[in-house]
Amino acid sequence: MEKRYFFQIAYNGEKHSGWQRQKKQSSIQEVIETKLQLIFGKFISIIGCGRTDAGVHASNYFFHCDLPPVTDTDHLIFKLNRMLPPEISIHQILEVSIESHARFHAIERTYRYQIHSKKNPFKERLSYYVPQTLSFLKMNEAAGLLIGKHDFTSFAKLHTDVATNVCVVMQSEWIQEDDNNWCFEITANRFLRNMVRAVVGTLLEVGLGKIEPNEIKKILAEKDRNSAGKSVPAHGLYLHNVKYPDTIF
Amino acid sequence: MEKRYFFQIAYNGEKHSGWQRQKKQSSIQEVIETKLQLIFGKFISIIGCGRTDAGVHASNYFFHCDLPPVTDTDHLIFKLNRMLPPEISIHQILEVSIESHARFHAIERTYRYQIHSKKNPFKERLSYYVPQTLSFLKMNEAAGLLIGKHDFTSFAKLHTDVATNVCVVMQSEWIQEDDNNWCFEITANRFLRNMVRAVVGTLLEVGLGKIEPNEIKKILAEKDRNSAGKSVPAHGLYLHNVKYPDTIF
Repeated sequence: MEKRYFFQIAYNGEKHSGWQRQKKQSSIQEVIETKLQLIFGKFISIIGCGRTDAGVHASNYFFHCDLPPVTDTDHLIFKLNRMLPPEISIHQILEVSIESHARFHAIERTYRYQIHSKKNPFKERLSYYVPQTLSFLKMNEAAGLLIGKHDFTSFAKLHTDVATNVCVVMQSEWIQEDDNNWCFEITANRFLRNMVRAVVGTLLEVGLGKIEPNEIKKILAEKDRNSAGKSVPAHGLYLHNVKYPDTIF
Repeated sequence: MEKRYFFQIAYNGEKHSGWQRQKKQSSIQEVIETKLQLIFGKFISIIGCGRTDAGVHASNYFFHCDLPPVTDTDHLIFKLNRMLPPEISIHQILEVSIESHARFHAIERTYRYQIHSKKNPFKERLSYYVPQTLSFLKMNEAAGLLIGKHDFTSFAKLHTDVATNVCVVMQSEWIQEDDNNWCFEITANRFLRNMVRAVVGTLLEVGLGKIEPNEIKKILAEKDRNSAGKSVPAHGLYLHNVKYPDTIF
């Protein structure tokens, strides 16, 4: 009798085409499924909490799968971490009720976008370098206007196959880590494709004084991707956390 | 009339064969000299504070060179940082007296060696992953025995062309950064080739219980590279700082 497990992992997305298995490119999902097959002697399908685009990182990502009962999860973590490449790390394995679903049961997701203002040879692939002077006061004023229930069509990649572009944003703010490092943190019930990178690109335009904080309202209202700013690169973006109801663990 | 300048820089050594210009491989020195030539329209020879091996990083490195008087050093920093690849960053340019020398006038150098004990996809190329349980108490006991004036032949790459292997170590200790991250910090008047990596490899053997802290004395006394432990990889090593007499600035 198989049991269902949630895996909490982290990955560096630099070398992969994203979470989702692709025909011709390597993906995080494929790399993990290959190792699980080696351990369990059969193909194990894993279901992620969502897609991440090529190059996007995750400091906390969850997937679920069904396995023969695991008596020693610490040993399985150890074994998998040794088999997986350095860019993927397994943090936790939790047994959950058999109907729990990593994607459908996620209540909230939090993304972080890292930027640094002083050239740093050790951050080049982990954070986006923005040497220009930014007004974080204005950026935070604009960020706050995203909180609530809004249609994010202006920040979505065109022609996606979702029924609605309405998202409920609970948190949207810039956090200063030190003199040269900031991150934008956003929590919502759901995210559209490319949404965080388009939001950050737009907020940077606010910070540079190209648009006023208040214009965010107009951009949302226009429901037109051309109204918002350019997307920022993938290498600054991290899926930071995913929240599930306590009852599933 | 040219003036002499000290440049304080940082670099990620991953993609380069070290500081020193080489015939067939790219080096930090060559990359910087190429950009200075573009700016000043003639070849500018730069003299580093020392060599670093292939793959070794520097969070603070100094070199000197002679340039036509620079009226706006901030602008030169800005220009160079834009021209240089992301793995090299210029922090400061200081005018010094014309006889000041980045190598000969360095009084002390400090190296750091970073290790992490929990698999971390974002540190794979910036820190050495050591999943085994280590006794940092024992490692610090052994590290302390290196302080003072010793012959470091046991920790030197064989057949180097230096006259003496005696170094004066002022500081040698393991510092805990958080639950999963430690660094070894060592300050000395000079370092032999490969010395820090051989010291760290030996201290890790102490931490793993393979040798007793006290055996460090015996290893030093034997003056034989085979007595000490294996060298650890370059990607955890950083030239952390270089100290000059205040009078030269």
